[in-house]
Amino acid sequence: MLLTAPGGPQDAAPGTPGSVRPGGRTARTREAVRAATLAELADKGFAGLTVEGVAARSGVHKTTLYRRWGTPAALAADALDVASAEPWPVPDTGSLRADLRAVARQVVAGFTDPGSGPVARSLTAAALHDPDAGRALHAYLAARHAQAAVIVNRAADRGDVPAGTDGTDVVRCAVAPLYYRLFVTGEAVDEALADRYADAAATAAAAGVFAPEAD
Amino acid sequence: MLLTAPGGPQDAAPGTPGSVRPGGRTARTREAVRAATLAELADKGFAGLTVEGVAARSGVHKTTLYRRWGTPAALAADALDVASAEPWPVPDTGSLRADLRAVARQVVAGFTDPGSGPVARSLTAAALHDPDAGRALHAYLAARHAQAAVIVNRAADRGDVPAGTDGTDVVRCAVAPLYYRLFVTGEAVDEALADRYADAAATAAAAGVFAPEAD
Repeated sequence: MLLTAPGGPQDAAPGTPGSVRPGGRTARTREAVRAATLAELADKGFAGLTVEGVAARSGVHKTTLYRRWGTPAALAADALDVASAEPWPVPDTGSLRADLRAVARQVVAGFTDPGSGPVARSLTAAALHDPDAGRALHAYLAARHAQAAVIVNRAADRGDVPAGTDGTDVVRCAVAPLYYRLFVTGEAVDEALADRYADAAATAAAAGVFAPEAD
Repeated sequence: MLLTAPGGPQDAAPGTPGSVRPGGRTARTREAVRAATLAELADKGFAGLTVEGVAARSGVHKTTLYRRWGTPAALAADALDVASAEPWPVPDTGSLRADLRAVARQVVAGFTDPGSGPVARSLTAAALHDPDAGRALHAYLAARHAQAAVIVNRAADRGDVPAGTDGTDVVRCAVAPLYYRLFVTGEAVDEALADRYADAAATAAAAGVFAPEAD
């Protein structure tokens, strides 16, 4: 849920009309910088992310990086901005519980996968203490929450949860304990916990806890 | 729930037997340093916390601070260590839902109170990106979770939740969405949200989501 692999086709989009070649070059530069940023984060964490390191890995001159991004935090924020726009297949199993389990398991997988995990953890950690990266993470998660709320809206259409249930907040509750363990209490997560927290959110939603009359 | 006011009587304990005066002086120094650390965090945040600043505010010589604490993170970690040992009145209303609401409201109050909020936010933010402060926060929260789990154990004794319910995890679920909003998504919290998340955890616990047979 947090990040797809760097270098996906979504970054091959051309530039603005009338500047196709420069736009294409800009898009290619941005993607090269993004891929290098993610690779540097995977290797060295946010504390080890430097403009020079991204320049060396991407082949983009560091004066270009300083002019367009300026700081390591801006590089991390841009990687998150790109991720916000990436398509994400929202689960649709016909069951709120199973859909939320799929979302929560994606969070566990995103942070524990040997490939994507270190990058996702580094980007999130960066966002937790840098305001620019933080704003990018907030926008990214707001986009993901809004997409995932469709799961709850479909459950309301089926009559599985009360009309007016706050879908975004149901999604927050399904994933929040995973983030709490990973980033606040420093505890491990696994699929069994993902299922438990998804079940807790689904059970509470079915009982009307997230519907207006419950407040 | 996160922090009580600095300078409580718990720090007036004498030193080890046989060294009463040096122990008392050490305890007084530690408390002066802790109070100065919390005050500096309130004024300047973790990014602005320096050994020199704590020395100036506490009146303790900076060579003493460097020798005993060394870094701003160690100063923050020590403030959290002291907080871990502080007594905390666990709510006991006779209702799981009301007890969890009280705990969740304490979290909201701790982070939003004009006096304690900036310190609590700064200490938590410090722990999110510094390993030493992180370990201190993990120990602090583990102690608080274990204390609060009594709430769920009492509910099990009353038959309100199944026997074997994971009380610590119920508490995590009641407070995690608040931390998620405050530190990950950058969203506001209030008492209505505290009540909602407490109700969600209590409803799921009553339904057996946190009992062994549910996994």
